[in-house]
Amino acid sequence: MRAYELIKAKRDGRALDPADIRSFIDQYTRGDVTDYQMSAMCMAVFFKGLSAVELGAWTRAMLESGEVLDLSETKGIKVDKHSTGGVGDKVSLSLAPLAAACGVPVPMISGRGLGHTGGTLDKLESIPGFRVDLSVADYRRLVKDIGCCLIGQTATLAPADKKLYALRDVTATVDCIPLIASSIMSKKMAEGIDALVLDVKVGSGAFMKTLADARTLATTMIGIGKEMGKKVVALLTDMDQPLGRAIGNSLEVIEAVEMLRRKAPDDYTEITLALTAEMLVLGGKAANEAEARKLLIASMDSGAAEKKFCEIVAAQGGDPSAITDLSKLPRAKKVIPVRAMREGLVTAIDSEALGLAAMALGAGRAKASDVIDPAVGFVLERKVGDAVKVGEPLLQMHVNEDARVNEVTERVLAAYTIGPQAAATRPLVLEKLS
Amino acid sequence: MRAYELIKAKRDGRALDPADIRSFIDQYTRGDVTDYQMSAMCMAVFFKGLSAVELGAWTRAMLESGEVLDLSETKGIKVDKHSTGGVGDKVSLSLAPLAAACGVPVPMISGRGLGHTGGTLDKLESIPGFRVDLSVADYRRLVKDIGCCLIGQTATLAPADKKLYALRDVTATVDCIPLIASSIMSKKMAEGIDALVLDVKVGSGAFMKTLADARTLATTMIGIGKEMGKKVVALLTDMDQPLGRAIGNSLEVIEAVEMLRRKAPDDYTEITLALTAEMLVLGGKAANEAEARKLLIASMDSGAAEKKFCEIVAAQGGDPSAITDLSKLPRAKKVIPVRAMREGLVTAIDSEALGLAAMALGAGRAKASDVIDPAVGFVLERKVGDAVKVGEPLLQMHVNEDARVNEVTERVLAAYTIGPQAAATRPLVLEKLS
Repeated sequence: MRAYELIKAKRDGRALDPADIRSFIDQYTRGDVTDYQMSAMCMAVFFKGLSAVELGAWTRAMLESGEVLDLSETKGIKVDKHSTGGVGDKVSLSLAPLAAACGVPVPMISGRGLGHTGGTLDKLESIPGFRVDLSVADYRRLVKDIGCCLIGQTATLAPADKKLYALRDVTATVDCIPLIASSIMSKKMAEGIDALVLDVKVGSGAFMKTLADARTLATTMIGIGKEMGKKVVALLTDMDQPLGRAIGNSLEVIEAVEMLRRKAPDDYTEITLALTAEMLVLGGKAANEAEARKLLIASMDSGAAEKKFCEIVAAQGGDPSAITDLSKLPRAKKVIPVRAMREGLVTAIDSEALGLAAMALGAGRAKASDVIDPAVGFVLERKVGDAVKVGEPLLQMHVNEDARVNEVTERVLAAYTIGPQAAATRPLVLEKLS
Repeated sequence: MRAYELIKAKRDGRALDPADIRSFIDQYTRGDVTDYQMSAMCMAVFFKGLSAVELGAWTRAMLESGEVLDLSETKGIKVDKHSTGGVGDKVSLSLAPLAAACGVPVPMISGRGLGHTGGTLDKLESIPGFRVDLSVADYRRLVKDIGCCLIGQTATLAPADKKLYALRDVTATVDCIPLIASSIMSKKMAEGIDALVLDVKVGSGAFMKTLADARTLATTMIGIGKEMGKKVVALLTDMDQPLGRAIGNSLEVIEAVEMLRRKAPDDYTEITLALTAEMLVLGGKAANEAEARKLLIASMDSGAAEKKFCEIVAAQGGDPSAITDLSKLPRAKKVIPVRAMREGLVTAIDSEALGLAAMALGAGRAKASDVIDPAVGFVLERKVGDAVKVGEPLLQMHVNEDARVNEVTERVLAAYTIGPQAAATRPLVLEKLS
């Protein structure tokens, strides 16, 4: 079928043949299907969706538009985690060494941050010397030798997704669940994994604002995994406020290491343990979640998890002494508190607004070419449910440029809602789907 | 608003501001809004529509993307007719001289044929010497001096529509009523007319298959006319079988001239008179349809209408003696009957299939670069309701290339349905809307 006929069929709600989808994506990758045809198709998909079979074909075509890494020389069940992204989400930084320390190989290809959410790669690069641009050969070797490697997307993995994502970004077809799901899954499947744990964030600070949307996205990704013969487990987790207390690159690395020392805030610790436990179960290292949690706690208490983190850092060119001695990580020149203007209980923190405030401080990028300042960010002193008096700090602002202080202070104050009564809170892990 | 936000707003069903629509179309014409953004927008419009106000702004922006012809030096109310296209639709060829002969100036800019329907320009060009590529200055002069001019689309009229139509054609966004309506109306308004009669064809051989769709299209175009301060009347007319008996370029010119001599088939004559009568009423030359019809009959009986046709032909470089003596028009080498294989009544003729058969014979274009043979085509001997015996001709095939005879014969036989009982027929003019 010609591109025109495929667009028309999808527009009219008819099912597309998997072979036609394959050909359409292949032609798009080569440039024989044009951007304007693909954008019309994406808009038609926005309205008409993709069935499980169509989505499997679509994802497989994107996956196979490039290299699919072969990690067969690494023994064991290789498991990765993917998060849909949230403010203060540094789970990967502690989860990867934890899972690897417990014997699950973690091949992890991550993204950079754009907008209000930070990227794992940017956080890792705040560790002096840490390199995320390793070759595929190095990646393969490190997964085999030390059980983990954390690198960035390469040009050879899922190039169709890279091209399509840039197009969706300018044609209002980003927030479309089948397209989100196939984008994530095609990239993750290209890593060479056997199984995947998904952290689908739900709430005001997340891409998915409602539980229903998050559930649909999770179910869709699980369905794709099934079509492609990979085990996928999804946790729907709360993102109504930032995760943990640190927002900003080196500040989040610090909090992640503190987690491995069992000194991090409860919410961040709990979500990390819940997700990593699923990885251990999928990876065949624990029979169930309870058993997995015991292994994880033990790996922290013995120092094995932190040691694994140091090993990863050293293997990727970084200075492991910056992990054992966190004072060696980049620090901002000034730490300035943002103080409450009124008394009461923190009833809400607008994560997205706080993420954008951190971006304005230099911790994130408004556009891809922006340069990140690894040292700046926030450490929250008050979270939802906490009491605060006038003049007490809501958070500490880590700043390098005085010129930004006033604007960012305003943004922080606007992001906090303080009222007379505490809001109802919900569990951190809202649902598990598999 | 940025293009991205406008696409998203339309996608989400929010109303677009007329000024934003204007800017979006202007930027598209200049190339600042890309083809892939416009195709996403068109697909969003396909699903979410355009309100009367949005559509007015959209059409006006397309109209004003180019030159709007000024025919103010021509006295009187200038009226054109537009047909959504059908097989054997040669109404313009007789309607234009008829209206002009009755004193209504007819500035008519037409298209070429593509696919199963022929184009007025192609038909006119079968008259030896006839030129449709006159300059705008000549067009203006002829409308003033002889009350009519029939030319092709110029590059300066509605260039946004030209660009957009080509894009819609490859992105499955052609059959979208607001986009069809704005495309037609922006081109027609650019001609410099005061009023417009629409012939919206309904049926198996037409673009609009159902009365409901045709009604929506007509109402939409009337609404645009209202937004732009122009009077628009629409007739919904039957296109369940070809109009008249001739299909093919010079064959249709012959039938059109015969109509002016009152010797053409009733269906074609009746539809032409109904549409031209509306033009006379809109043009202020008759108080009502009955009065208009009298004037039209008189102009035929006196020979004024045919004389006007000859005048137009001469003014546009053609040989008027080919009108007075129709044997001078191109004729095919052979006339071969296609004979019925069974006895009965003709219960249906698939106009689209017959149009495609004529195209295969050389009377039309499958793609824009195809060259038309003016002489070839069909003259129908049996229409719906007629009885036929085995071996009697269904139609006469006018052929120049023997190689095509067998295939076309098969197609013709497949296009005719012959059964025991006559099908119910419906009126030629189904509805009038204004």
